[in-house]
Amino acid sequence: LESNRLASLFDKGGYDAVVVLSPVNVTFLSGARILTQRLIPERLAIVLWPATSAPTFIICSIEETLVRAESAISDIRGYVEFKDAPVKMLADVIAEKGLQRGRIGLEKSYISADHFGQLCQLLPEATFGGCDRQLDLIRAIKSKEEIEILAAAAVATDEAIAAGYQSAKPGRDERFVAETMRSSLFQRGADELAFLCLGAGAHCIEAHHTPCSYQLEAGHIMRVDIGGSFSGYYSDLARTAVVGKPTSAQEQAYGALWDVMEEVIDAVKPTVPARQLYQIYKSGFEKRGLPIRMPHVGHSLGIKLHEKPMLMPYEDTVLQANMVLEIELVHVDAGNLYHNEDQVVVTDTGHKIVSRTRDWSRLFRIAS
Amino acid sequence: LESNRLASLFDKGGYDAVVVLSPVNVTFLSGARILTQRLIPERLAIVLWPATSAPTFIICSIEETLVRAESAISDIRGYVEFKDAPVKMLADVIAEKGLQRGRIGLEKSYISADHFGQLCQLLPEATFGGCDRQLDLIRAIKSKEEIEILAAAAVATDEAIAAGYQSAKPGRDERFVAETMRSSLFQRGADELAFLCLGAGAHCIEAHHTPCSYQLEAGHIMRVDIGGSFSGYYSDLARTAVVGKPTSAQEQAYGALWDVMEEVIDAVKPTVPARQLYQIYKSGFEKRGLPIRMPHVGHSLGIKLHEKPMLMPYEDTVLQANMVLEIELVHVDAGNLYHNEDQVVVTDTGHKIVSRTRDWSRLFRIAS
Repeated sequence: LESNRLASLFDKGGYDAVVVLSPVNVTFLSGARILTQRLIPERLAIVLWPATSAPTFIICSIEETLVRAESAISDIRGYVEFKDAPVKMLADVIAEKGLQRGRIGLEKSYISADHFGQLCQLLPEATFGGCDRQLDLIRAIKSKEEIEILAAAAVATDEAIAAGYQSAKPGRDERFVAETMRSSLFQRGADELAFLCLGAGAHCIEAHHTPCSYQLEAGHIMRVDIGGSFSGYYSDLARTAVVGKPTSAQEQAYGALWDVMEEVIDAVKPTVPARQLYQIYKSGFEKRGLPIRMPHVGHSLGIKLHEKPMLMPYEDTVLQANMVLEIELVHVDAGNLYHNEDQVVVTDTGHKIVSRTRDWSRLFRIAS
Repeated sequence: LESNRLASLFDKGGYDAVVVLSPVNVTFLSGARILTQRLIPERLAIVLWPATSAPTFIICSIEETLVRAESAISDIRGYVEFKDAPVKMLADVIAEKGLQRGRIGLEKSYISADHFGQLCQLLPEATFGGCDRQLDLIRAIKSKEEIEILAAAAVATDEAIAAGYQSAKPGRDERFVAETMRSSLFQRGADELAFLCLGAGAHCIEAHHTPCSYQLEAGHIMRVDIGGSFSGYYSDLARTAVVGKPTSAQEQAYGALWDVMEEVIDAVKPTVPARQLYQIYKSGFEKRGLPIRMPHVGHSLGIKLHEKPMLMPYEDTVLQANMVLEIELVHVDAGNLYHNEDQVVVTDTGHKIVSRTRDWSRLFRIAS
């Protein structure tokens, strides 16, 4: 973490210290990825980062080996699970640092009502402000290393999708294709599969279909939306295929989606408001007489799957260099759902598409 | 969901309605598993369950197809993401049901400080109580169907571990063994891999090691702690192996762990306080002169990975028939960590171990 990025938070927010508890921001500020923090949310991990002194990391003693190996924070305080109260420990450290009358930035959209209530009682003279949005904006600008990890993750994911579609044929079921993608994703370096929504025929229209024993037939549209985790960073891509030769209606429906996709991506550059990408989708679909169904046309991603900016009509963020965007469109036609999602890095002068390891401008043809 | 189980909550808690937002309790009360609720927590899904009228399910419109297919709740209200405010919608439905002066049960350990603050403002005459613990206790007693899913998940997971160890040999790395377990788990019906911590040699002592390119050598201890998700329910087992012939010190260390494991499991039956299982571990280790390092010796599981009761010294729950427990012990000796975790169902008269598809009473021997 570059500490000058955090400095902007203290300056603009007027905070004497920032406290984070969410897995996303704990990883961001500490460098440690604590698996159990996601699986067992009541096993708290807390970073206290004062404006003018060194940070403190409060963790469950079980995680101490991992945290000391992964985090640059040296003041680590372990609590014994069930015996010690980590929120009480946090209040004690805040007092120890002389900040008990300070202004503390908190993730008010994450911290539970219970924990917030306890903190207010333990520190009656402190004031608390929500700094969620500011942390989101700091995370939105990626470092060079983060951009490299995310781009490599996108490439691996795109290749895994292609491997899955190449393994498909009529008579094979959704589970088979999903399993090929899954194992291919791990072979290409994923540490975790975050989600794999894949559906064929009547299932492709379900927003998040779990692959099942439904068998492919000639003429089916098949759609996948898949994400993995690579060194703590997400990938997230969607691609559409057809079993055998597409009908001209299928080709047209996908072609319209692709053309609008290209119009949206073309507009990506610094100083463009994020919501403008949504407007380009909307007018592109309207111009073609297609129904507007999407509340957003993509999102940033990083340690979190959906990060700011969201590419939606009410987003007030302006695109900046080193943001990483997922541009994502769906189009429903004649009971089929067509879906494409690409990863685009905002550069100093425009953008770079990093997720296309092959030509997806036409429907992928599954052998029949 | 058997509605008489929920009735106890209204009676004892004195609630006019219960509101849940956590993925776990939303799935429990609605029957729907909304993937994006876990991946994108800000995309709220809310169940409002009044004591004397039908429940309402507030969801993002994107999820409507899935929710209508999976949930028995018929009053479904979809909100348009970013445009509509789901917490405002909740307050409106509470008022519509005439409960704006009522006593509302909430998950105060889950709902964010922001959302709780909004709800208090929108419903100034309502009172709010935390019903987290009561929901935990209701979920702790499993139905026949839940017990069957969990037992089948444990069997599949145990077989996947054995398949992984059978694929191991000196020169292969942790990733190879992990990949065998992973694909084997999916072949046996898992919908998701929740976690896979696997380490050999110097890595086995790390609490949650991510499998890497570290190669197996004769004499290494290898340890796995793996969990999958099957039809929305977790599995969670841990097993230990040795590469080649174990030393007598390794055999002894594992033997001591196993013996105490058996003592703990033997004690499982209705009316036993959950914390007593911890005491049996503690005195078993003390008697053998082994260090006490674990804050708990297991947990229940279900829709959530760690459910109540926790098998820890401060747990005040008494075991009851149809609880499902993970009994889990670790022992560190000479730099190696030995770990075993089994699934045990509490029966009317005692217990049943459901996770052993082979004899694990001695270290699994990996071919060398």
